Amino acid sequence: MSSSKPARGGVWAQFFVTEPGTLMDVPLGGRVNRYRVEAVHVRSGAPIGGVEPGMTMARVEAPTPQPLQGRRFGAVGVVQHVLYTDAEKRRELAAISAGERGPRAVLIPIAKSDAWWAMAQDERDRFFRRSPERPGHVDIGTRHARSIFRRLYQARYQAGSEWDFLTYFELAEEDTDGFRTLLSELRDPALNPEWQFVERETEIWMMKV
Amino acid sequence: MSSSKPARGGVWAQFFVTEPGTLMDVPLGGRVNRYRVEAVHVRSGAPIGGVEPGMTMARVEAPTPQPLQGRRFGAVGVVQHVLYTDAEKRRELAAISAGERGPRAVLIPIAKSDAWWAMAQDERDRFFRRSPERPGHVDIGTRHARSIFRRLYQARYQAGSEWDFLTYFELAEEDTDGFRTLLSELRDPALNPEWQFVERETEIWMMKV
Repeated sequence: MSSSKPARGGVWAQFFVTEPGTLMDVPLGGRVNRYRVEAVHVRSGAPIGGVEPGMTMARVEAPTPQPLQGRRFGAVGVVQHVLYTDAEKRRELAAISAGERGPRAVLIPIAKSDAWWAMAQDERDRFFRRSPERPGHVDIGTRHARSIFRRLYQARYQAGSEWDFLTYFELAEEDTDGFRTLLSELRDPALNPEWQFVERETEIWMMKV
Repeated sequence: MSSSKPARGGVWAQFFVTEPGTLMDVPLGGRVNRYRVEAVHVRSGAPIGGVEPGMTMARVEAPTPQPLQGRRFGAVGVVQHVLYTDAEKRRELAAISAGERGPRAVLIPIAKSDAWWAMAQDERDRFFRRSPERPGHVDIGTRHARSIFRRLYQARYQAGSEWDFLTYFELAEEDTDGFRTLLSELRDPALNPEWQFVERETEIWMMKV
């Protein structure tokens, strides 16, 4: 993997299908995780080509941008500064959030509609917050923060990206049901109307190897 | 210039010093502007190397990411969705904002401090808004929106970038004093405390050619 020049901020991740045991060049300060794909569930929009159960997935994280280069299923994103978490919620989440977990890992790439991206910041923000009618994205997520490790990679402004976000989770076996509850709550428009703007979404369930 | 793969969103710009009349390969859907550099004013932090009065600057805008490649003064950024403009202010600005202007163009690359990037969204947002004590960034900018064309390129998460933002302006000769007023108001901590987080800033004054 050719390493690129550092940027001012961010942690980049690239996910791609590889062969078990393949050696790879990792950018300075980077690390690799490998997974066995267990299941692929299309939730909305076009399926992902090239990812099937039994395959090996790699995640390379590094402080430098990693251009997509002819990967079988390649997806790239960057951890940026937070956009929808206020200071109080951030303190709360910092105090309770799970660290890395295992053995399960789930990658859910997501694309939202043009209507989402056309909104102003306050309009988008409102969808994340609690209202008298429903909990919203942030409060639903907070309920599961103690048990499920999560990382959000922004993908909308990456070359060759088909996705707006790569959402990534790690969890223990015994939290699998809780994780499914989290996903179904986020997708319920009565609880979280934000999800009506998701137009493409696939779950890739994996086990760390 | 090698063109890159499209992303889901964004308009990329690359600024670099070139020779007058040099032909260049422009990415599909892209365009080039050329400028003569008139003056370079360091406002804070380290000076920019390689840009001097009399040189020719190019701006290449395209819907695809443009990696920096051994340019003399190269800076790259992307127009993203808006982060600090609420729906009402956005409607107001859309109704009054100047289109492209000339013959003057001013590029002001900016880097903010780690303290800025460590804040939560609501904390950063507060610095942009009016309060009883001062107008803040958005209101100061709105006063000049009718006469000065502005474009904000996000640069923090671009490979090889030394900057967080490339701010770009176009104006008529007769609006030069108004533009200087805009800059001095934005830099006045009593009027706009946000600017205390700017730790590197240089003005590159140019004329369109």
